[in-house]
Amino acid sequence: MESIKVGLLGLGVVGGGTWSVLQRNAEEISRRAGRQIEVVQVAVRDVAKARAKVGDGIEITNDPALVVANPQVDIVVELIGGTTLARDLVLQAIHHGKHVVTANKALLATHGTEIFEAASAKGVMVAFEAAVAGGIPIIKAIREGLTANRIEWVAGIINGTTNYILTEMRTRSLSFEQALAQAQQLGYAEADPSSDVGGLDAAQKLTLLASMAFGIPVQLDRAYVEGITHVSDQDIHIADRLGYRIKLLGITRRRAEGIELRVHPTLVPAHSMLANVEDAMNAVLVNGDAVGQTLYYGKGAGEEPTASAVVADLVDVTRLHTADPEHRVPHLAFQPESMADIPVLPIEQVRCAQYLRMSVNDAPGVLAEVAQVLADSEISIGSMIQEPASDGVATLIFMTHQAQESNVAHAINKIESMSFMRSAVTRLRVESF
Amino acid sequence: MESIKVGLLGLGVVGGGTWSVLQRNAEEISRRAGRQIEVVQVAVRDVAKARAKVGDGIEITNDPALVVANPQVDIVVELIGGTTLARDLVLQAIHHGKHVVTANKALLATHGTEIFEAASAKGVMVAFEAAVAGGIPIIKAIREGLTANRIEWVAGIINGTTNYILTEMRTRSLSFEQALAQAQQLGYAEADPSSDVGGLDAAQKLTLLASMAFGIPVQLDRAYVEGITHVSDQDIHIADRLGYRIKLLGITRRRAEGIELRVHPTLVPAHSMLANVEDAMNAVLVNGDAVGQTLYYGKGAGEEPTASAVVADLVDVTRLHTADPEHRVPHLAFQPESMADIPVLPIEQVRCAQYLRMSVNDAPGVLAEVAQVLADSEISIGSMIQEPASDGVATLIFMTHQAQESNVAHAINKIESMSFMRSAVTRLRVESF
Repeated sequence: MESIKVGLLGLGVVGGGTWSVLQRNAEEISRRAGRQIEVVQVAVRDVAKARAKVGDGIEITNDPALVVANPQVDIVVELIGGTTLARDLVLQAIHHGKHVVTANKALLATHGTEIFEAASAKGVMVAFEAAVAGGIPIIKAIREGLTANRIEWVAGIINGTTNYILTEMRTRSLSFEQALAQAQQLGYAEADPSSDVGGLDAAQKLTLLASMAFGIPVQLDRAYVEGITHVSDQDIHIADRLGYRIKLLGITRRRAEGIELRVHPTLVPAHSMLANVEDAMNAVLVNGDAVGQTLYYGKGAGEEPTASAVVADLVDVTRLHTADPEHRVPHLAFQPESMADIPVLPIEQVRCAQYLRMSVNDAPGVLAEVAQVLADSEISIGSMIQEPASDGVATLIFMTHQAQESNVAHAINKIESMSFMRSAVTRLRVESF
Repeated sequence: MESIKVGLLGLGVVGGGTWSVLQRNAEEISRRAGRQIEVVQVAVRDVAKARAKVGDGIEITNDPALVVANPQVDIVVELIGGTTLARDLVLQAIHHGKHVVTANKALLATHGTEIFEAASAKGVMVAFEAAVAGGIPIIKAIREGLTANRIEWVAGIINGTTNYILTEMRTRSLSFEQALAQAQQLGYAEADPSSDVGGLDAAQKLTLLASMAFGIPVQLDRAYVEGITHVSDQDIHIADRLGYRIKLLGITRRRAEGIELRVHPTLVPAHSMLANVEDAMNAVLVNGDAVGQTLYYGKGAGEEPTASAVVADLVDVTRLHTADPEHRVPHLAFQPESMADIPVLPIEQVRCAQYLRMSVNDAPGVLAEVAQVLADSEISIGSMIQEPASDGVATLIFMTHQAQESNVAHAINKIESMSFMRSAVTRLRVESF
């Protein structure tokens, strides 16, 4: 059978990895796919550098518009990133009747609705396994593996950079700044780490997972996003003593009133599977009503792990290339005409257990006053510890039961206004799954 | 679009679960699949009992041959188990042009080659996600999610009964017999537990995983199978002190000389992901050359977890029902004409690290003699501990580096023939992945 022809936009980390994997495993891949997958054209900024990598056999251009319009190309692989040029190129590729494979979570979390609609109208596929959790086939699991289930919630460690930083902070007693600097040295964090440590990268991925789990449109702007820059080594070590680890989780959950969609540092029980996902590894826990909890674990970034997902998408698209569009897996797991109109809840309506730490004057009655404020806000205390006082300042830590976030915010405001307070309240959320 | 019509053979644990999930999540499932999945006929032994479960709307028969020949039926779901009647019915269903979904690992591990050939010749699909690791979509992950990779090895906890027994032995200091009795009381083990505790069930599943990982025919008769009946609480506690847990693993690995295919109790480092898979849970670790290690975790048995996999297969088959057979995923991951002729290695050619425990006379020179035998057999010792002697008997425990199994067997024979020995040598294998 004739080979399927691929046009590659970008030959950076993931593009280079995709090229390498397609070359190295060409035989293994075509034994599976039933035909060869052949890169016929590459668009890059630096043609000479690309030539050195891919050799003489294939066309190299610095104009990506040529690739998306190339009549020889069946599938366009978009690996240039960003949400402006990438959006134009993906829409042009679709317009020209090409299937698209992309690793671009920012693009799909922002312009997914437009892109998927254009693809459906044109009868082409947009595959994006590499956009979430790198080499872990989590999109396939949710879209195809768990179709029997009403999915109740998804919770994942979907940013390797922050997981590496939090692991180093705990195991080597580093500060956030020290761990970040080390992550940058090792190439786990970028020079501008804000999208990772601020939680945006995880929120983009979570937005896609939520759409596929619940059949709702992508709504990145509705996500609650809190990063790890304020997580202190003190909190990590207190959590450790309480039997918890702090992880940056993306959590999306179906409630009667709507969908929770939130990224924040979270205390999880130390013996749980998620707590033991260390270093730069990713893992996603999915709860379906029939299957219960399933977990998917692996490398969430890097040259070849991400390429593994890109190439798996190429094989899928190759298989379904000439099949009737109705036989394909819907982009967001549910048929476009069956998407649900469930609202995403603002953070104030989320319910979550809380870890609250505060410094107070070491005086009788203080604990009772704080406890009273919590009670007044309908926040039930699960446990409390008081750290030994020094210099007349005591540290109180409360672990609460599930409480409405608006009540928690109200209580924190009230507590912080009290005269015995010696610090702001540090608040982290707690999940036990 | 018209509904797809399903004929159900068996309405026991998994059949009943499949029925329940299809009813309860009918809307969610058809929003994904794009059409309704409708059970139109059920074959059972006890028609009245089935009628009580499924109500009046559908046909019930006690003759499964009617279902596999029913012109109205598009997909036959085989959930009666066994390898005789089930084989006949599956082959008949294929003969009548029906697609087949089955949870029957024994059938496929034994007659897979015949069944897949018949299906390919007839242009129908045989889907079997439920046959390995219950609700975990591990077959989908290997066949579709990791197609970019040359898979190097697969190692899994794929029998929940034995994992439950080993967990109870460790955490509650029970003997094998006590833990088994408890597993039987709780319904985790059958009245005749031999297929589970003897390792056959895991070997059937591993055989299927190996075929899909490496593109080799199913060869259950070549698998090395060792169960957990000889695992003592003493070894579990010694392993614990050495920083290991004992798990029944199915391991298949590609080596230059051939494929390792083996099920046996295995010491794994206590901090590893597999070591922390407890109770009746399953997990499969897959190593691909591009993606590295990925892990898939969840419930490997039970009514609804298994039904989750059966129904996911129904959705997949529904989607590809009218598609050209060439677009479908090959039964064993690789195109039938591209299967590899790599030999399965006999256990003697496997290389593995070892845990060796023996009771010896507490006399000078004994340790040196044992060490000499190991050295003569090219077995390198990683560490050794000697338990305090009592009544003149000392216990020696050796942890070896990787060694050829034939050498290990030879050394054990030689050691056991020595006059200072007070017990047989207990041997367990060690893997660190």
